[in-house]
Amino acid sequence: MASSHDASAQNAVDMANARNQASIDVSSVKHFVYNRKEEWQRKENLVQIMSKDPVFDKSKREWMTRTEKYSRGLRMVNRMYELEHSLGWSKEDTKVATSLLDDALPINLHVTAFEPVFLLQASQELLDKYAGLIATRGIFGCYMQTELAHGSNVAALETTATYIPDTKEFEIHSPTLTSSKWWIGALGKTATHGVVQAKLILPGGKDMGPHLFFVQLRSLDTHHLLHGITAGDIGPKSFNGNAPNDNGFARFNHVRIPKENMLSKFAQVTDDGNYVQPPHAKISYGGMLYIRSGMVTAAGWITAKAAVIAIRYATVRRQGNRGPDGLEKQVISHPSLHVRLLPILSRAYVFIGLGRALTQAFDAMAQRLSSGDTSLLAELHATTSGLKVLCYDSQPVSVAIYADMVPSVTYEGENFVLDQQAVRAALKAFRVLFGPEGKSQPSASVIQNLPPSSDYLQPPILKDDDSSSSSWYDSETLILLLEWRAALLVHELAQTLQDPDATIYQRVSKGTTEAFVARRVGEMISGLKAQPELKPNDVDVLRRLYILYLQTTVESALADFLSFGLLRLPSPSRLGASRDPTRGLRVAIARICVGLLPEAIGLTDALGLSDWELDSALGVYDGKAYQALWDRAQMEPLNAKEVPDAYEESIKPMLLRGQKMAERKAGSKL
Amino acid sequence: MASSHDASAQNAVDMANARNQASIDVSSVKHFVYNRKEEWQRKENLVQIMSKDPVFDKSKREWMTRTEKYSRGLRMVNRMYELEHSLGWSKEDTKVATSLLDDALPINLHVTAFEPVFLLQASQELLDKYAGLIATRGIFGCYMQTELAHGSNVAALETTATYIPDTKEFEIHSPTLTSSKWWIGALGKTATHGVVQAKLILPGGKDMGPHLFFVQLRSLDTHHLLHGITAGDIGPKSFNGNAPNDNGFARFNHVRIPKENMLSKFAQVTDDGNYVQPPHAKISYGGMLYIRSGMVTAAGWITAKAAVIAIRYATVRRQGNRGPDGLEKQVISHPSLHVRLLPILSRAYVFIGLGRALTQAFDAMAQRLSSGDTSLLAELHATTSGLKVLCYDSQPVSVAIYADMVPSVTYEGENFVLDQQAVRAALKAFRVLFGPEGKSQPSASVIQNLPPSSDYLQPPILKDDDSSSSSWYDSETLILLLEWRAALLVHELAQTLQDPDATIYQRVSKGTTEAFVARRVGEMISGLKAQPELKPNDVDVLRRLYILYLQTTVESALADFLSFGLLRLPSPSRLGASRDPTRGLRVAIARICVGLLPEAIGLTDALGLSDWELDSALGVYDGKAYQALWDRAQMEPLNAKEVPDAYEESIKPMLLRGQKMAERKAGSKL
Repeated sequence: MASSHDASAQNAVDMANARNQASIDVSSVKHFVYNRKEEWQRKENLVQIMSKDPVFDKSKREWMTRTEKYSRGLRMVNRMYELEHSLGWSKEDTKVATSLLDDALPINLHVTAFEPVFLLQASQELLDKYAGLIATRGIFGCYMQTELAHGSNVAALETTATYIPDTKEFEIHSPTLTSSKWWIGALGKTATHGVVQAKLILPGGKDMGPHLFFVQLRSLDTHHLLHGITAGDIGPKSFNGNAPNDNGFARFNHVRIPKENMLSKFAQVTDDGNYVQPPHAKISYGGMLYIRSGMVTAAGWITAKAAVIAIRYATVRRQGNRGPDGLEKQVISHPSLHVRLLPILSRAYVFIGLGRALTQAFDAMAQRLSSGDTSLLAELHATTSGLKVLCYDSQPVSVAIYADMVPSVTYEGENFVLDQQAVRAALKAFRVLFGPEGKSQPSASVIQNLPPSSDYLQPPILKDDDSSSSSWYDSETLILLLEWRAALLVHELAQTLQDPDATIYQRVSKGTTEAFVARRVGEMISGLKAQPELKPNDVDVLRRLYILYLQTTVESALADFLSFGLLRLPSPSRLGASRDPTRGLRVAIARICVGLLPEAIGLTDALGLSDWELDSALGVYDGKAYQALWDRAQMEPLNAKEVPDAYEESIKPMLLRGQKMAERKAGSKL
Repeated sequence: MASSHDASAQNAVDMANARNQASIDVSSVKHFVYNRKEEWQRKENLVQIMSKDPVFDKSKREWMTRTEKYSRGLRMVNRMYELEHSLGWSKEDTKVATSLLDDALPINLHVTAFEPVFLLQASQELLDKYAGLIATRGIFGCYMQTELAHGSNVAALETTATYIPDTKEFEIHSPTLTSSKWWIGALGKTATHGVVQAKLILPGGKDMGPHLFFVQLRSLDTHHLLHGITAGDIGPKSFNGNAPNDNGFARFNHVRIPKENMLSKFAQVTDDGNYVQPPHAKISYGGMLYIRSGMVTAAGWITAKAAVIAIRYATVRRQGNRGPDGLEKQVISHPSLHVRLLPILSRAYVFIGLGRALTQAFDAMAQRLSSGDTSLLAELHATTSGLKVLCYDSQPVSVAIYADMVPSVTYEGENFVLDQQAVRAALKAFRVLFGPEGKSQPSASVIQNLPPSSDYLQPPILKDDDSSSSSWYDSETLILLLEWRAALLVHELAQTLQDPDATIYQRVSKGTTEAFVARRVGEMISGLKAQPELKPNDVDVLRRLYILYLQTTVESALADFLSFGLLRLPSPSRLGASRDPTRGLRVAIARICVGLLPEAIGLTDALGLSDWELDSALGVYDGKAYQALWDRAQMEPLNAKEVPDAYEESIKPMLLRGQKMAERKAGSKL
């Protein structure tokens, strides 16, 4: 009888069967994902070490208080550097080890913001003094930009750094409550030093706008705050996310720092208070760009975890009509579910690849910046502005990861502000192509000299049968459609700038960024064959996964495609036939998903995420989700006592009062 | 100088100015929202009492452990009933008081599921014995349907209730791990009794499918679990949401209950074990429908809180270019922001009104059901299936409220399962209209006899200028468009049932539900003038707010409208002109938002949500968000010590190690 069937044992059978079904070589694809076998082995080795170390145990973190989570976070940070030291990890080893810690730790901002900004912009003198200490965490830093009332608009920051020629010092000051530095990671309780964004005020009160200053915050002997500095933790964040990170506030009351503490590689103040112009006005954005390109990679892995958990659970969870085996169907077999899950998997693969490409681009820019060449800066700024929005807007909601991600909507630039930056770059490129009035035809030489993020403005050559069904499987058609849509959106914006509609800026930003990503995905597809790790069948499966990404990108923008006539409307309705011009694409998505379904568990395994990393009962590797859920429930502290403390305090008085009332009522009825 | 400007004091000025700008009579609109003055006063009175009572204080809950949150929750429940008793609250008073508690409390399921199901389906004998105790909370109940491996598909539940003729008892049993009841609110530690969904097994092993049984779980003397029952809390939930609710698990090991404990108003077992057929197969869905209609109201108020907080903060937050006053602009004045916020406000007003209408419909159904008339059941089932999905899918992400809401995607029916139920109803109505082949023209009498949720299938009469800009402000045009789109989607589905595309089921469900809601919104608009509370100007503002809801509903479905040719494409592109057929609508949305902007704070005030209810620093009534943020940060327990405990344990060792390493490296360089 089906009712006495052991669904928990069935979990393992279902997972094993799904694993056997996959035709890809999981190891090969895994090595491809990790960019080669050695990188995978490095990570695997670190996972082995860390997952067995009790300091990195995750089983009790759910029930910790905020303060306990903070303490645990720092124990992990300290332990990691202890291991680095004792095991002789390389810089890259430590970087990968840090990425394995799925708690938002104070160290992250030291590594991704404080240190790179310092290295890029400090004078040689300051580098000599502090770069070594920063690299070994002999001092612990934070990056202090945002203020209580000021975020993305750096020009409006209120904190001042006034130059005092007499003593050759800067005086850092917070004139108002709203100028308090706010939200700064590691500032609350941990950091000993910080890079502070403040308005440089020169003698005579001349305001030179925001510049960066290196400021010691706490004593290296006692960890007490230095004189004139008030600082603390800003309190719990949405959904209790980022709990181990002491995001903090700080106010400066006329705090003096030596003149050489200005990060002055590109902008200097002379001893008598004159300003020496930097070669590029936006030089200080360098740090933020680095964070943004890292965010794409991070978004890729967060998406990957969500996809692995959801696909594994959907593989073992059964619900709905019974099949020939007398069991309910595996829910992943329901089209309504797998057309939602497989696109998430495709996004994970795309973002991971894209993040790698961006990080390489950043490294190239940093190389050039350090020698004063700012030519790549504007390009990378435009690219990462739109990308950051795209990555975090298209996130699937997934387990507790989401809570840590929520602030990403605003930090490193509020999403809609970034949209406008992407739009500005698009408009600029448009005017280069079509002239200031948008009416001239672009010459071939103009097109060739456009930066890569403007690829989409090159008029694509559409084939005749673009709305027929076979084209929906052709990556080049899909990419051209996305590029053509971006061009038409930019054109639309250019024509209606005086009276923009409600959403045109967001649509242009999304359209241009999606075209940029689509072109990169095209490069990934054509590059697959050259990957030494992959076998021909792996190449075919990955190609289809990338095409699914392109298809669903087009689908999510159908209103644009239809608006601009890029999809042909079908001939006037015949009874008994589809009247929907979008059906071809939607059917193609359904088909490609059905084709990828047998590969789903293989593709999730190839992401190489251990149970320790996933920390999810639903997503366990062996498939025994029900047993894992049951086991975890038994750890809930409320279950330690059969009768909770609340019984004597609240439940019993309530029940007794109710029983008396009921008795009285029943009595009065008689 | 702008930098020394007191932005915190400016907060209050900005809020006061915005409040003065509104032309609506806030009291009048408030009385309309609360369905009349007396209802508003009832709530206001309860808020006065509860917000001053220390038991309902919210200031420390963020830092409580799970167990502390549970205990606090029950203190609140007990205190509320103490107040009910001592102040002589009516049943309606208590209902409103319960709705004011913004924590997910174990009592909610007693009130919304356990009690109504019991009252609807228990025999007179059982009612006499327990209805009084349930009403006074002399016993505390839960509703036990979901199992570890089984959710929406009730037919697959594994728990059995086997009838034993010898002793006239049922034996409740959980044959497997996966048959454990799971996720059940109040079951973990609180409930004394429960209504259990179990498969009724008659002598000879005949499986009669799921039925409901009334089971005592814990001793009323000691609160210990009764013999044969294992139960506990399932542990923390996503984002630490629903923490005060002891969602629980339970296993039954051959637990005997008397025969009269079967809820047998509509289905009975005779003493010798024969089954007496119920008049309507789906009778037991009654309870779930009640929860669903309540969920629409709840979604309305959750949306309202999000809208109030976001709009108030956007009113005082300034960012971007400086205006003539030398200040940055209020962010709500940025079109990219207000076109996102005002539609959320419109949804709040729509859902609150819709929830009221649905609750009235449920009351009517319950009235009929209690006399055995099931005629309204199918209709309400179809309506609420789609609505629940719509309400919770279109939620704005908002503060901590979100965490409590996440499970709503699956509880009371997983969203995509519900979609299919709405679709089934739509297809049935379609076949009534157009015949089994979808080819015949419907007769007038057939149309007149369709139930209200099928309104959208009546062919709308479109005007000539539907895609011209003036029509976008006309509610009837917008409603007809939504109805016509629903009809075409159902037609498309009917034509392609054999080979459905990836998303057609979701689109049909969304389309038909949005058409249903749009028609109700049309009724709300035409009913405004008859509202005694409202002045003509209030009617005009609310009408525009409702039209914004309709406009944004159409906008979110543009791909459908364009697919089916419901929007005319513009003539072939002229240079210097818009080529976008959706521009008319999008401009209309931008315009209506600009027009509503001065009313925004008035409309949020009219929702009548006190600071105690909102519990948000960003959304304080007086506008002083920065001061409130600062004050709250000072309460963070991490700030109690200047140097955290983690310093000696982790930070100091890490810094010292780093300093030594840096010294060594510097030394080796020399």
